[in-house]
Amino acid sequence: MSAALRIGMDIGGSKTAAVALDDAGTVVAATELGTVRGDDGVVDTAESAIVALATQTGVAPSGFASVGIGIPGQVDRGLGVVRNAYNIGVARLPLAQRLSARTGLAVSLDNDVTAAAIGAAHLMRLSGTVAYLNLGTGLSAGFVVDGVPLRGAHGVAGEIGHLAVDPRERPCPCGQRGCLETVASGSALRTYWPAGGDHPGRVLLSAIAAGDAEARAAYDALVAGAASCVRLLVLALDPHTVVIGGGLRLLGAPLVDGIRGELDLAAATSPFLTELELSARVQVLPADSSAAAVGAALAGNL
Amino acid sequence: MSAALRIGMDIGGSKTAAVALDDAGTVVAATELGTVRGDDGVVDTAESAIVALATQTGVAPSGFASVGIGIPGQVDRGLGVVRNAYNIGVARLPLAQRLSARTGLAVSLDNDVTAAAIGAAHLMRLSGTVAYLNLGTGLSAGFVVDGVPLRGAHGVAGEIGHLAVDPRERPCPCGQRGCLETVASGSALRTYWPAGGDHPGRVLLSAIAAGDAEARAAYDALVAGAASCVRLLVLALDPHTVVIGGGLRLLGAPLVDGIRGELDLAAATSPFLTELELSARVQVLPADSSAAAVGAALAGNL
Ligand SMILES: [Zn+2]
Ligand SMILES: [Zn+2]
Repeated sequence: MSAALRIGMDIGGSKTAAVALDDAGTVVAATELGTVRGDDGVVDTAESAIVALATQTGVAPSGFASVGIGIPGQVDRGLGVVRNAYNIGVARLPLAQRLSARTGLAVSLDNDVTAAAIGAAHLMRLSGTVAYLNLGTGLSAGFVVDGVPLRGAHGVAGEIGHLAVDPRERPCPCGQRGCLETVASGSALRTYWPAGGDHPGRVLLSAIAAGDAEARAAYDALVAGAASCVRLLVLALDPHTVVIGGGLRLLGAPLVDGIRGELDLAAATSPFLTELELSARVQVLPADSSAAAVGAALAGNL
Repeated sequence: MSAALRIGMDIGGSKTAAVALDDAGTVVAATELGTVRGDDGVVDTAESAIVALATQTGVAPSGFASVGIGIPGQVDRGLGVVRNAYNIGVARLPLAQRLSARTGLAVSLDNDVTAAAIGAAHLMRLSGTVAYLNLGTGLSAGFVVDGVPLRGAHGVAGEIGHLAVDPRERPCPCGQRGCLETVASGSALRTYWPAGGDHPGRVLLSAIAAGDAEARAAYDALVAGAASCVRLLVLALDPHTVVIGGGLRLLGAPLVDGIRGELDLAAATSPFLTELELSARVQVLPADSSAAAVGAALAGNL
């Protein structure tokens, strides 16, 4: 029995993943459950996850050292409040306070992508500056420098998805046109390839293997967009490593090889880009990693 | 007499500025001299600056605590070597070692824009995350987080000038097209307004006041480009403050007001941008600040 297990949780639009970490930062228990939407639903979900981890570890639910939660939306860490997390049905929820009142545990919140960046750096044993590129339904990034996350002034560090840079100028839900998110994300993939349905990432590679030319074109466009994101992250922050995460990482080696190839192609026209050794910096988060949950457990102290 | 004056130096293409800081970080002496180009010229220039500061302060040239140098090009801090600093005629110079051998002083190097970011944060008493946007002949940025500079993996953090984002796709010396530097910089201003000569920034406002429509259009394009840079920096790193520095900062209040107006205009189309409070984050480095020299003096310990 350990006296100091820390819980980390990744509350997402459909699922919530939770882990318990020991003092050494090793995952000793993990669970996953469906996220119940809305204020009460989210608090219930988080409490259920704690109870499940208590059962697995033999620790009383009130006996954990801390709970860290990675969550979408805008997070005010000081207040423990999350706002505008529409995909979990939350407009404004003082989640830290409400969960703490129920469980007696110290609860801290973090942006889910920042938590994933912390977790990826920990799980992949990356030092120096790490940029985590979240290719999910949306697009954003998180940064960790020598183990410490960059959170920024208003909790929007890494919101590169809403940089308006694409000359095709597709409309974006944020109100702008040509945002990076319209070029490199799950939602971009749906516009590139409407025939792919609601979860095109799951069927893209098999469609390409079957000779689907539209799927192939969509894949090429996605890869080019993701390579633009990597260039942006490297030129902005010069990270030692760019980790590809988010749901589209499940495209795996073909995605990363495609991104590397695109970066090498661009570098061939520019000695400046060649010196940056862009493609050598790209890695992919392993498919089975609960990076955001692990990072959330660690984030309370960072 | 102080026993611990630190020297900071900003070695630029035409001029070298040098300061001496006391323990409290206050500038107690300052000098400026012409930069002599080439390896020997640069070492001579730096030594002359030290001698001048020694005369001003009454400290023996060997009696300073340290020398920090901000310099263009690629800087290897570990080796104390600067490479590819073409505007001072240097391909590869072990400047720290050579200046140390001549003076007996501990010498450290830093990228000039990183040094300027450190100096701006210090002189303007800015806390949190500071992004320094250098609108000079070229375009780049430097970052300071809670007083500590972000230097990155290969010393290229902040090289946003070579992000290829502009649909007009003007060629850039780096080999790419449409780089931000072709849109927002002194060299961009020369292409916008060829009639402005080699130093268009110095005559732009008077030409506009005299009713020059081409000068006005060039100014508007420059302001729009600079606003794009601010948006990029805020969405990437969420800084508390974006400081406008570099030679074009001498355009002063009209430049900053123009940038703020452009940011507010863009925000009017996007609730997302409105929430970011972009224009409130923009400040300009005061005209008479030796930010890079001051920052270089401080940078050795950061
Ligand atoms: Zn957008
Ligand atoms: Zn360029």
